Amino acid sequence: MERKAGTLFYSCSLLLSLILIPLMWIALDFLHLCILGLDCSQDASKMGAVSSPILGIESFEAENQVRGTRQNFLHNGTFHEAVAPVLAVAQFFCIMPVSGICAVTHRGLSFSRRSWRFWYSLLYLCSTSVDLMFSIRKVFHGVLDVRSVEPIVFHVSILVASWQFLNLARLWPGLMHHWAAVEDRLPGYRCCRDRDRLARRIQLVAFLLLALSLMEHLLSIISVVYYDFCPQRSDPVESYLRGTSLQLFSVFPYSNWLGWLGKLQNVLLTFGWSYMDIFLMVLGMGLTEMLARLNRSLEQQVRRTMPEAYWTWSRTLYRSIVELIREVDDAVSGIILISFGSNLYFVCLQLLKSINTMPSSAHAVYFYFSLLFLLGRSSAVLLFVSAIHDQARVPLRLLRLVPSEGYHPEVSRFAAELASDQVALTGLKFFSVTRQLYLMVAGTVATYELVLIQFHEDEKSWDCELNDDD
Amino acid sequence: MERKAGTLFYSCSLLLSLILIPLMWIALDFLHLCILGLDCSQDASKMGAVSSPILGIESFEAENQVRGTRQNFLHNGTFHEAVAPVLAVAQFFCIMPVSGICAVTHRGLSFSRRSWRFWYSLLYLCSTSVDLMFSIRKVFHGVLDVRSVEPIVFHVSILVASWQFLNLARLWPGLMHHWAAVEDRLPGYRCCRDRDRLARRIQLVAFLLLALSLMEHLLSIISVVYYDFCPQRSDPVESYLRGTSLQLFSVFPYSNWLGWLGKLQNVLLTFGWSYMDIFLMVLGMGLTEMLARLNRSLEQQVRRTMPEAYWTWSRTLYRSIVELIREVDDAVSGIILISFGSNLYFVCLQLLKSINTMPSSAHAVYFYFSLLFLLGRSSAVLLFVSAIHDQARVPLRLLRLVPSEGYHPEVSRFAAELASDQVALTGLKFFSVTRQLYLMVAGTVATYELVLIQFHEDEKSWDCELNDDD
Amino acid sequence: MERKAGTLFYSCSLLLSLILIPLMWIALDFLHLCILGLDCSQDASKMGAVSSPILGIESFEAENQVRGTRQNFLHNGTFHEAVAPVLAVAQFFCIMPVSGICAVTHRGLSFSRRSWRFWYSLLYLCSTSVDLMFSIRKVFHGVLDVRSVEPIVFHVSILVASWQFLNLARLWPGLMHHWAAVEDRLPGYRCCRDRDRLARRIQLVAFLLLALSLMEHLLSIISVVYYDFCPQRSDPVESYLRGTSLQLFSVFPYSNWLGWLGKLQNVLLTFGWSYMDIFLMVLGMGLTEMLARLNRSLEQQVRRTMPEAYWTWSRTLYRSIVELIREVDDAVSGIILISFGSNLYFVCLQLLKSINTMPSSAHAVYFYFSLLFLLGRSSAVLLFVSAIHDQARVPLRLLRLVPSEGYHPEVSRFAAELASDQVALTGLKFFSVTRQLYLMVAGTVATYELVLIQFHEDEKSWDCELNDDD
Amino acid sequence: MERKAGTLFYSCSLLLSLILIPLMWIALDFLHLCILGLDCSQDASKMGAVSSPILGIESFEAENQVRGTRQNFLHNGTFHEAVAPVLAVAQFFCIMPVSGICAVTHRGLSFSRRSWRFWYSLLYLCSTSVDLMFSIRKVFHGVLDVRSVEPIVFHVSILVASWQFLNLARLWPGLMHHWAAVEDRLPGYRCCRDRDRLARRIQLVAFLLLALSLMEHLLSIISVVYYDFCPQRSDPVESYLRGTSLQLFSVFPYSNWLGWLGKLQNVLLTFGWSYMDIFLMVLGMGLTEMLARLNRSLEQQVRRTMPEAYWTWSRTLYRSIVELIREVDDAVSGIILISFGSNLYFVCLQLLKSINTMPSSAHAVYFYFSLLFLLGRSSAVLLFVSAIHDQARVPLRLLRLVPSEGYHPEVSRFAAELASDQVALTGLKFFSVTRQLYLMVAGTVATYELVLIQFHEDEKSWDCELNDDD
Repeated sequence: MERKAGTLFYSCSLLLSLILIPLMWIALDFLHLCILGLDCSQDASKMGAVSSPILGIESFEAENQVRGTRQNFLHNGTFHEAVAPVLAVAQFFCIMPVSGICAVTHRGLSFSRRSWRFWYSLLYLCSTSVDLMFSIRKVFHGVLDVRSVEPIVFHVSILVASWQFLNLARLWPGLMHHWAAVEDRLPGYRCCRDRDRLARRIQLVAFLLLALSLMEHLLSIISVVYYDFCPQRSDPVESYLRGTSLQLFSVFPYSNWLGWLGKLQNVLLTFGWSYMDIFLMVLGMGLTEMLARLNRSLEQQVRRTMPEAYWTWSRTLYRSIVELIREVDDAVSGIILISFGSNLYFVCLQLLKSINTMPSSAHAVYFYFSLLFLLGRSSAVLLFVSAIHDQARVPLRLLRLVPSEGYHPEVSRFAAELASDQVALTGLKFFSVTRQLYLMVAGTVATYELVLIQFHEDEKSWDCELNDDD
Repeated sequence: MERKAGTLFYSCSLLLSLILIPLMWIALDFLHLCILGLDCSQDASKMGAVSSPILGIESFEAENQVRGTRQNFLHNGTFHEAVAPVLAVAQFFCIMPVSGICAVTHRGLSFSRRSWRFWYSLLYLCSTSVDLMFSIRKVFHGVLDVRSVEPIVFHVSILVASWQFLNLARLWPGLMHHWAAVEDRLPGYRCCRDRDRLARRIQLVAFLLLALSLMEHLLSIISVVYYDFCPQRSDPVESYLRGTSLQLFSVFPYSNWLGWLGKLQNVLLTFGWSYMDIFLMVLGMGLTEMLARLNRSLEQQVRRTMPEAYWTWSRTLYRSIVELIREVDDAVSGIILISFGSNLYFVCLQLLKSINTMPSSAHAVYFYFSLLFLLGRSSAVLLFVSAIHDQARVPLRLLRLVPSEGYHPEVSRFAAELASDQVALTGLKFFSVTRQLYLMVAGTVATYELVLIQFHEDEKSWDCELNDDD
Repeated sequence: MERKAGTLFYSCSLLLSLILIPLMWIALDFLHLCILGLDCSQDASKMGAVSSPILGIESFEAENQVRGTRQNFLHNGTFHEAVAPVLAVAQFFCIMPVSGICAVTHRGLSFSRRSWRFWYSLLYLCSTSVDLMFSIRKVFHGVLDVRSVEPIVFHVSILVASWQFLNLARLWPGLMHHWAAVEDRLPGYRCCRDRDRLARRIQLVAFLLLALSLMEHLLSIISVVYYDFCPQRSDPVESYLRGTSLQLFSVFPYSNWLGWLGKLQNVLLTFGWSYMDIFLMVLGMGLTEMLARLNRSLEQQVRRTMPEAYWTWSRTLYRSIVELIREVDDAVSGIILISFGSNLYFVCLQLLKSINTMPSSAHAVYFYFSLLFLLGRSSAVLLFVSAIHDQARVPLRLLRLVPSEGYHPEVSRFAAELASDQVALTGLKFFSVTRQLYLMVAGTVATYELVLIQFHEDEKSWDCELNDDD
Repeated sequence: MERKAGTLFYSCSLLLSLILIPLMWIALDFLHLCILGLDCSQDASKMGAVSSPILGIESFEAENQVRGTRQNFLHNGTFHEAVAPVLAVAQFFCIMPVSGICAVTHRGLSFSRRSWRFWYSLLYLCSTSVDLMFSIRKVFHGVLDVRSVEPIVFHVSILVASWQFLNLARLWPGLMHHWAAVEDRLPGYRCCRDRDRLARRIQLVAFLLLALSLMEHLLSIISVVYYDFCPQRSDPVESYLRGTSLQLFSVFPYSNWLGWLGKLQNVLLTFGWSYMDIFLMVLGMGLTEMLARLNRSLEQQVRRTMPEAYWTWSRTLYRSIVELIREVDDAVSGIILISFGSNLYFVCLQLLKSINTMPSSAHAVYFYFSLLFLLGRSSAVLLFVSAIHDQARVPLRLLRLVPSEGYHPEVSRFAAELASDQVALTGLKFFSVTRQLYLMVAGTVATYELVLIQFHEDEKSWDCELNDDD
């Protein structure tokens, strides 16, 4: 009887989640339009004047000046503006304590050790460290193998990533300054829809992933609470909270407030883990868009005979984008290594677990949703970040279409530089994130999986006695 | 007694098949010559005039004009014409619903959502999807391992490929238009035999593979029907049809018309699976031939001191071929990924099965023929497609033979572009199809095989009880 | 008692073999000097005049003409002359049926289908094919695994290689013609010792390997005959011959003449297997030497300001060597694939066997000598052949030392061509033979070994019943 | 009771070691400053004059002359001077018998077969060879697997490395001569702190590693002596010495002096093993610093329009550094191969052992410290050596920032040469040491580990009977 009610509730929650996601997105979008109230028509005329960077060198200069004065507008299509909501969410979850993310221009950004955001982040780092200690203690009291170290890998990767984000917050104002300087030199957008596009895409991807992450977390709670077959305590809430923070309650006696604290920590960690990937995707989109804007300009001009100044302009512009990418890489390559490494570990682990028999169909639904979400997110981050490399190779192809008459020494230099460039974000310089990496990672996962399965026996991880050692 | 008759019948069928293939080819060739009735001699004189593209820039222009007017001839050596029979066969099996494949020129091609071909293809997609559902249902009722998911991999890969072909059909008229434009710029053939060659090679390869595929299917039927040792029903036909569509008859009760429908679906799937590879080979041959024609021209002129215009002509021609290859790649790289992936999976699986003991020598003959056919087809598609890359590297070698006196800036630019080019079809940009890939794939197969064998016990897949769960 | 005598005899044979090898080499060298009677002093003066290719363009031309008339000398330092004894030995063992290998110049070379050498080779091919059939029959009567297919791999690889050698013999006269043409353009040797060096090195390597191969074969005979603990027959000779040709005597009854015939076939196969590697090493040395001669010339001139004509000369010379390497590669890349593949297989197999316990120390000595010989030979062939690639990269380094004043466009073109060149022999174009390959192959062997060991149990391959199934 | 005292003693030793290390370093640094008594202020003025190599060609020449006369100063910032203490320590442990390492300039270096250092090293080589023989004898009396060959791998790698160091000592004077010649051409330091930096960093790294190595050895002694639970003899010293040289005492009866001799040999081997890595790191730092000095100069000038002479200067300077790296590589690539190979083997082995249960927490502390030290040292040597490659790629990036007006042909040549250069130390040319290697090695270790674990059972290596077979 009760079981049936549970199933009903479960299906409802699932449906609700599925409905909530698009609703959230629409609401967000609506809010966006309302607050910012962009008037498209009046802006288009101004943009039109500067959208043809082929008229001569003066126009490039002119454009920059025009754009310089236009920065007091609300909607300027900058990355700083587009990324603001994503960073705001992060700060809500104690990550990236940089001030002024919602400022009109990047000049409002600052990082200070005396702001509350900084101390908030530091507190989070400390509590995570403490949690890690308890987890290590718990793991070393059991048997060690590739699966039992899961909580340690989870905690350590998030701890190091949070520390990296703290460091990134310090560099963020300088980085955004450099970014804006390069953005100013880019050819203008043709209309306001183009200008809006980046922000909309970034926010769509970020909130879709956040919503999916939330949904996965809800499913996990539902499947544990409503299908609890290890009723350690009569109270389902206590039983759930105890299960979430086993590492704490194997040391301390159970108390409600500690349980809720543990749950809070658990939510923050889960978010931090997803946020790494989301942030990298957003960065990837931002950098790809810059290269794409240059490529769109080149695409139009490349078959004509252009003056040499055009090629000097495009070459130095490309170079400054590449230098920006290098600077971004210096700041985030640590996060990339952690993100890719932990994704690789968890994909292997979840695939390994997929052979287990599930205790109930609710658990099965949760497990397969979680596995698909993990695979999808891991693929997405790789593809979004590797798009930088793909876009950076495009000009090489375009330069080959330049007619002989317009093949100035500048074009030749541009082509030679492109041919020997390797533009991509890297994992601490150990590997470049390119599309070819996908296949290598997939092959590695397949190989490790085949070997790991041999050690694996269905270890009845749903057995009540095993998980519960208080 | 009966057994012996079966053996006799079996041997006869085998012999018949072996005789049928060359016969089919000769018949086809004869048909080809009769219908098209090409007069070689009268054409040669016209061709002779345009076969030397070294006389000056005018000749290139002239040639193009001559070729432009020649397009109302029947036998024009174009790829559109050569590929027509291959596409016709595909349409017979519900793939590539593009109209006008037998039109004289590429201008007759069109794609419409209102044509019967389109709906025919769509019907096929739907029935395959339904079949897939039943297969998934059946697999998840048994035990999951690398071998039991075979029907799902088979169905999914064909379903996605068919969908890709539907999409390709939409792009095909534009692609052929671009292709014809490039073909027009190529140096002319010296005689009609050359002009015929591509079409003959394409049709030879395509029909050889189709015949082998047919033969394999016949062998499979014979080995199952005549050596049936799991006589579930007294009627061998019913027993066979039931075995072919187990996924259907584990849901529905047996009925003859459903059995034949299932068989029809099975034939269409088997063809679709082979056709992917055949189509890729044909595309590979077409693109390779274009590069080869340019290379033959270069080979003749490269040691002489040519005017700069010659090099501009050859460079831009090479570039337009490369752009065409890129366009083709955008259209078919999904099919390449599916084809290579499914071939990799099935080769691993069949090699794994090869350790099993066979229930009869008829089954053994069928199995080893099928394994060899699979290995041969997989190798062939890789080699034919990678030939594009090999041919695209040839001009780089030839340009190094240009004498110092004729080493114009155009030659230098051509050489620099070639050195940094990677011209090849790709699998969704994840990997380039080059000859080196062959060894990598072979090494992967060997490694996986060694690991897979460890899980493997001779699972008596011929055991009647196991396969039969109705 | 008898055992002790055997040990004595065994030790003596070992010692004898070890003494024989240097003796053979000295004898050969002495013979060489006696027959050819080279007068070093009178030749040096002539060589001196042409050893400085830096005086101007005329000197290059002059040199060529001088060398052109010098070809009627006996000792001309050509590859044709150096390789003659190696080919002579091959013909003694029914391989490479080309006529005129001992002719003074390459012009004496010819290939004819009517010569006795050709029919001799063809006979060998036929008898090997028949032997292969018997081996396949024997293998398929036993259990199939990675070790039992050893005779098939052995026979097939030698059969295909012999066929490749037959084909190479057909191409050999043309190849040597091209080779001599390039050799003529190379800068002259400084003294007769230099000129002799290549021939001496080639013959040293070839005969050292042949002697080691012979010694290994003798050790195998001794260990089997004198430590025979499976006395199937009282006669040790009959017992040995029966063991050598088990595949024959499992069909036919034992007869002495068939036994000796089988032994002869066995000796020819063993030689053919070693000869593949020897031939590739010799080719590698020949091609490396050509590049080294060019590099020695460049090394001297590269820091000076040379006229542009010098660079044209060296670039075209380098190009013609590369074209020769490509031509050689087209002819022998099949042999390279077979040689590397079979070495990889046999190294894996022997390493796998090395875990077995040996029945006697005589068998252990033989086994470890054989294993070391196999490892050494496989490494040597890879290193000798990859030396071509290493030498071909040297000019790129040297060109960077050219002073600014002498950096003509020709140097720039030479450098650009070198930077994008991949000069190496290949295995059917599937892989290039470079030094990096060594590590890859070693890694592959290590991985496969680890996996193979898991299947392996000490299968008592010395058990009399197992090997003897007549 | 006794156990507790042991724990106390153990903890004290640990603490002491941890305190000793910084103390040693401070003492060394103090000594350094005292003896050399560098006056920074008086030197700075002289340096200032030559620190701007952008004034013209004359300044480069002038600088060289100034630096030429400055070589009689004590503190000249040369590599020769910086590396002296590291080599002195090596000679104390019988490695690198080159004379004059403490001489003021590199001209004092010499290598003679008649010096006591040479004979000292030779004696070490001989005693190691004898020790190896005994080890081989012992190993072959037991069972052979990947773990039991550990002593042989250990001895052989050190023996070959020592021989390589002997050879390197012969080449060292010439190498340092070349090194000093390149150093003289580098742009000067800005102040004396810069000049000191290399020496300080080298000595910090070297002595930190030596101290850690010492500490690890002490921990091993303590854990064996104080937690000896296999009391073969009542005397703990005898028991320990017997355990250290099991290979000797399985042949000879126990005697105290042989025990101490064995211990001495053991200490020398352990040092030799660590020293390989230390030496490679020091070399890596030295070569990286040279490239970094050039890069710092380029970084300043690259955005200005410089005269062509500046680019000729920087290109030839870069080239001479690369030539030096090549020369160093020829001398040490054997050591690199041995170092990397043995590190790979020992990391795999120790990770494999890490699954074993430890007999006491003292053993656990020792084991995990030893494992971390090994992992850290292996990573460090790879990163320090690969830094050469990273620094050598930097100029390529910088050259792209050169403005169009200053893009002389020399810059173009420099860029083209950099694009096709692969500057790195290698392992006998089989692999280049780059940052990418790290991931490949890590992947290999992970794969082998997974496979090795399957063979592994907790073999109770602490069982008294097993280790003790006298």
